[in-house]
Amino acid sequence: MPYFDAASSAPLHPVARQALIASLDEGWADPARLYREGRRARMLLDAAREAAAEAVGCAPGELSFTSSGTTAVHRGAAGALAGRRRAGRHLVVSAVEHSCVLHAADAHERDGGTVSRVTVDRGGRVAVTEFREALRADTALACLQSANHEVGTTQPIAEVAGTCREAGVPLLVDAAQTMGWEPVPGDWSVLAASAHKWGGPAGVGLLAVRRGTRFAPQGPADERESGRAAGFENIPAVVAAVAGLRAARAEADAEAQRLRKLVERVRTRVTELVPDVEVVGDPRHRLPHVVTFSCLYVDGEALLHELDRAGFSVSSGSSCTSSTLEPSHVLRAMGVLSEGNVRVSLPRGTSAEEVERFLGVLPGAVSAVRERLEAPAGPVARSRAEASGDEPALTVDSLGKRCPIPVIELAKAITGVPVGSVIAVLSDDEAARLDIPAWCSMRRQEYVGERAAERGAAYLVRRRA
Amino acid sequence: MPYFDAASSAPLHPVARQALIASLDEGWADPARLYREGRRARMLLDAAREAAAEAVGCAPGELSFTSSGTTAVHRGAAGALAGRRRAGRHLVVSAVEHSCVLHAADAHERDGGTVSRVTVDRGGRVAVTEFREALRADTALACLQSANHEVGTTQPIAEVAGTCREAGVPLLVDAAQTMGWEPVPGDWSVLAASAHKWGGPAGVGLLAVRRGTRFAPQGPADERESGRAAGFENIPAVVAAVAGLRAARAEADAEAQRLRKLVERVRTRVTELVPDVEVVGDPRHRLPHVVTFSCLYVDGEALLHELDRAGFSVSSGSSCTSSTLEPSHVLRAMGVLSEGNVRVSLPRGTSAEEVERFLGVLPGAVSAVRERLEAPAGPVARSRAEASGDEPALTVDSLGKRCPIPVIELAKAITGVPVGSVIAVLSDDEAARLDIPAWCSMRRQEYVGERAAERGAAYLVRRRA
Repeated sequence: MPYFDAASSAPLHPVARQALIASLDEGWADPARLYREGRRARMLLDAAREAAAEAVGCAPGELSFTSSGTTAVHRGAAGALAGRRRAGRHLVVSAVEHSCVLHAADAHERDGGTVSRVTVDRGGRVAVTEFREALRADTALACLQSANHEVGTTQPIAEVAGTCREAGVPLLVDAAQTMGWEPVPGDWSVLAASAHKWGGPAGVGLLAVRRGTRFAPQGPADERESGRAAGFENIPAVVAAVAGLRAARAEADAEAQRLRKLVERVRTRVTELVPDVEVVGDPRHRLPHVVTFSCLYVDGEALLHELDRAGFSVSSGSSCTSSTLEPSHVLRAMGVLSEGNVRVSLPRGTSAEEVERFLGVLPGAVSAVRERLEAPAGPVARSRAEASGDEPALTVDSLGKRCPIPVIELAKAITGVPVGSVIAVLSDDEAARLDIPAWCSMRRQEYVGERAAERGAAYLVRRRA
Repeated sequence: MPYFDAASSAPLHPVARQALIASLDEGWADPARLYREGRRARMLLDAAREAAAEAVGCAPGELSFTSSGTTAVHRGAAGALAGRRRAGRHLVVSAVEHSCVLHAADAHERDGGTVSRVTVDRGGRVAVTEFREALRADTALACLQSANHEVGTTQPIAEVAGTCREAGVPLLVDAAQTMGWEPVPGDWSVLAASAHKWGGPAGVGLLAVRRGTRFAPQGPADERESGRAAGFENIPAVVAAVAGLRAARAEADAEAQRLRKLVERVRTRVTELVPDVEVVGDPRHRLPHVVTFSCLYVDGEALLHELDRAGFSVSSGSSCTSSTLEPSHVLRAMGVLSEGNVRVSLPRGTSAEEVERFLGVLPGAVSAVRERLEAPAGPVARSRAEASGDEPALTVDSLGKRCPIPVIELAKAITGVPVGSVIAVLSDDEAARLDIPAWCSMRRQEYVGERAAERGAAYLVRRRA
């Protein structure tokens, strides 16, 4: 039963598991105490910090263990923003950051700060020049992920860090998706990572703050972890996390090479096997183990269930696992099709056979969902009649229907109007804003634009083919 | 090698250990995901929440898992204070709360709120009437621990909770020291606890917020745990924590009865075996497994080392394990002797033989420290000469010396002045403020008071015997 959602959480690495069990008996006491159990715990913690600092590429004194990657990001951002309060209260983030960074930015805005969100290209990558232009005299902090969690696109971290350094702005790097593969390059100031992403246990995050970075921890004081993370140290988990990190790094080069080939195979085959599919994410700058694609006329959640029944665990940026019905902010920022979105992220050790089996199962799973949704098959039939004018010749009422239904209804209705005429789709599903233009570009129809409507919006499409 | 510091951190309960290892393979995936690994993780988490809620005495929907007891207190206090912001910004805490509660209070003050700290009696207990009097029309929240972590005194929680409920003020109970023994009684509103105190793993705290309590989570948003705790759920640790809690509770009655006898034995024997010792904490309202005493003319840290060498791991409220040189805020609030302070907190399963061995070793350890400090032996020798007047007949300069040295110098010098005359001790050690009056009451000398001095303070003592 292959699990293809490593970018969400990786199974515990055997080395981490062993270290966890071994340190349960040695690491439970308070490392601040003077007796032997405390000294033993302190020794384990100190050794783990040294090893982790080496993997991060910082000094042990610059590294704190937090209770999660999310906490590392929240505390890192809050401390760096407060430390630079005199410079100003402006924060720069990329539009495709993990929600924990965006939530920290929202909290900063609620607290009276200002936030600029740097856009990305269709591949999900920021432009260094654009990032540089977002930096202002009152910018206290900039945040950029090392790689995107949904589409696998890597960012030009070293270049952006250099630009930030020149501007005197500290850069916080959310390295959750790359820490298990390699150190973050460049002259960053603050770094956050999460152990369960590299095969460590849950409950451990890393927060590195480079010496010379102005940093003022926020919230109630706590003596532990240089005042940067509150609460009793979870030493067995920390030891396991660091052992897992070292093990992951030792295998990283060979495993990255191997998985990159499997991912390449998926990227190529999926467009051959499944009609109307769009592979998203930067084709060159990407993680070795992640591939994401979107399928026209498919409901992401239904497709996950179909694949789960076939024994494959994958994730989706258009599934409703989160409490909102909005499509993934990442896919939206990239401006790509969000419907029927599937992220395949291979854990270490994934075999070529498992990937082949997935490719064997996928076309059937997609067509099963399309059949249930009565999606139109193939391209829009040619029409000989022609028309012109901007007023809709036909309005499709898709109010109250969730994507991909509005897109399916559009695809069916458009065959009923002459080439050159406009069709309007009324929809109150946020995903339509993304998916109707995406459908137009895939089907070579013309997306005219969006008009306000009493409920939702009217999306106008001119039949071109 | 007996470990007698369970109040600081308890060794992992065998049942918790087993549960942790068993759930490593089942609980690593994201419980928010729709595939089977996610559903399995969700089932484990739901079952753990139900069992924990039963042990706490609340509904599962009222209970969140946090990453530590400290985090539970910090987030619980911040959320309850923000939820009641319209009522006002006044916070009531007892003077003997755990530092994590006091640090939350300090943060609230820095943020513009006001704090009242309710005093305790010499046994460390708050008076219900005094607690009630501290509640005001603008009180947003009151905090009271179920039992004190340093001296083991239990608080009148049910009565205080009733009083708070009448006043319309929510009560937050820090139940870290009692959760493994019994549910917190009474009509509390918010509760915090910490798994590693009851034999669960580190990395798990409980935060219960009773329905009807106004609560506004602070900090960046996070969808997990009802928005009350940020970060990826640590399910294996949560499962282990709850299994450990159930196991601890199942043994609680029998084990409490057994340990209470051993503690009683220490309370009685220590004053018989060691001269000039004061057992501190409420003699009736106390935890079953904790006993704390202070030894005159003894440096707490030196005594810990002495006991550690003899194979016993204990804690001290006057050791310098913390970064400050001040004596414990708990002992100070109680107004008891702080020097040579030792806390013995027995873990489950401690045998009578271990306790006897400790009692065998203790007198030698204390006298070894006293000898090294050249402490005076026995009571002050009788004097026949008499004097009167308030001006010091002699001034002892103990500036720059750490307790117990100032007290030892006082005890030696006082034999050189006539009965009725006053001796002044100059000291800049904060502990002297506590320990010189305590010495006077133990030695039946008269503590006259304190005068400002160029450095530190002058403590005035009239020789009475």
